[in-house]
Amino acid sequence: MASTSAAEGGTTRDAFLGGRVMALQPARGFRSGPDAVLLAAAVTARPGETALELGCGAGVAALCLAARVPGLAVTGLEVQPAYAALARANGLDIVEGSVAAMPRALKERRFHHVLANPPWFDRRAGLPSPDAGRDLAFGGPVPLRDWVAAGARRLLPRGTFTLIARIECLPEALSACEGRLGGIAVRPLAGRAGRAPGRFVLRAMREGRGAFRLLPPLVLHEGAAHRSDRDGFAPGVDAILKDGAPFPWTD
Amino acid sequence: MASTSAAEGGTTRDAFLGGRVMALQPARGFRSGPDAVLLAAAVTARPGETALELGCGAGVAALCLAARVPGLAVTGLEVQPAYAALARANGLDIVEGSVAAMPRALKERRFHHVLANPPWFDRRAGLPSPDAGRDLAFGGPVPLRDWVAAGARRLLPRGTFTLIARIECLPEALSACEGRLGGIAVRPLAGRAGRAPGRFVLRAMREGRGAFRLLPPLVLHEGAAHRSDRDGFAPGVDAILKDGAPFPWTD
Repeated sequence: MASTSAAEGGTTRDAFLGGRVMALQPARGFRSGPDAVLLAAAVTARPGETALELGCGAGVAALCLAARVPGLAVTGLEVQPAYAALARANGLDIVEGSVAAMPRALKERRFHHVLANPPWFDRRAGLPSPDAGRDLAFGGPVPLRDWVAAGARRLLPRGTFTLIARIECLPEALSACEGRLGGIAVRPLAGRAGRAPGRFVLRAMREGRGAFRLLPPLVLHEGAAHRSDRDGFAPGVDAILKDGAPFPWTD
Repeated sequence: MASTSAAEGGTTRDAFLGGRVMALQPARGFRSGPDAVLLAAAVTARPGETALELGCGAGVAALCLAARVPGLAVTGLEVQPAYAALARANGLDIVEGSVAAMPRALKERRFHHVLANPPWFDRRAGLPSPDAGRDLAFGGPVPLRDWVAAGARRLLPRGTFTLIARIECLPEALSACEGRLGGIAVRPLAGRAGRAPGRFVLRAMREGRGAFRLLPPLVLHEGAAHRSDRDGFAPGVDAILKDGAPFPWTD
């Protein structure tokens, strides 16, 4: 997926969407992978609309979304200056600030779409990361429910909120949607067929009214053996990641 | 599943668990099917423990649970006198009363396990049923979150709550668990492989601490064609329904 090429002062330049997106990323710290590409694919945006990525990091998801939907105006919010600088170098429109204290420049705006791949860190798993940027990316102090609430507030009526997160967070994500977002659809992501899904993609709508839908898991890898997360994607998933095929929001 | 045999004054006597359970049910109105048998299978009870079924109807799930776990003391709560009478005729220990106003006889008790298959009725789908009992069974006035709250209050520490419901209700069920039940596991039930699941089974624990787990859907029927809900169960499901095999709570 992210074929590391030239290291430039602690950064690498990596390919996404089959090379349609080239993005600078830090060589160490939070580096985007298939999750960012799947998240972008799951946003049902149209040309001429606007989108905001909360906590965009170096901007891989936002760049993939812009590459997928020509004429979409994409803005990123990022709290860490080093990542914000990389995202700008990658060509994105960036506002520096925190999801927990929305900058005034964004408070005055509403978007057709908001997307987020919130940082996570399993606090039960042990020590914090020695890398401060990575630490924030993997377990920032902002709870997931605040990401959902902040995203919902930035949406135009009928605007969509799209989230990718660990499956453990599904109850919190659904709870945070209550009273803010409706018409919720969730597609779990499973490493292998028949295995418990490890992550999910959620899409919901401001003023949405439809019943909650749970789709069958999207199975990332074929077969029973696990070689690596970075190869052996199932053909349908490979088509999303490399060829820009749409995310399957129907069964 | 429920092979109708002799009608006796508006009731039928139906076989469950491969004939290990014979239960009187109303010939018209709310009649139990595979959901009740799956619910009973999903309760991880041991001999010598106690269990309470909320809104047990004629008692099919409670009877299946008692048949599966010898030496388990099972009590049913049922608000409709006609169903309570049938459940008693089926040999169950029954308390008459509503989930929304727990009878004193139950308020003083705590159980190792609580199970529920709450009535439902899609209010958007149209007219209420002409049969009053069926109407209550398919859309009683007690919200799902009150079922969860009432069940949680009846549990001993580390006791389990097990629920089967429509997938549309998953957000409400998870939200109702917040602050009451933890260690939640959800297994969706799908009619066919690759199709969106229509129902789910949820198991949670009072004072449970584990992370939320979503299991892969349990696929009820094999193949792509749909003949009828009542035949063609997948072998693993047939083993649960007919042979008393355990519900798969791991992937």
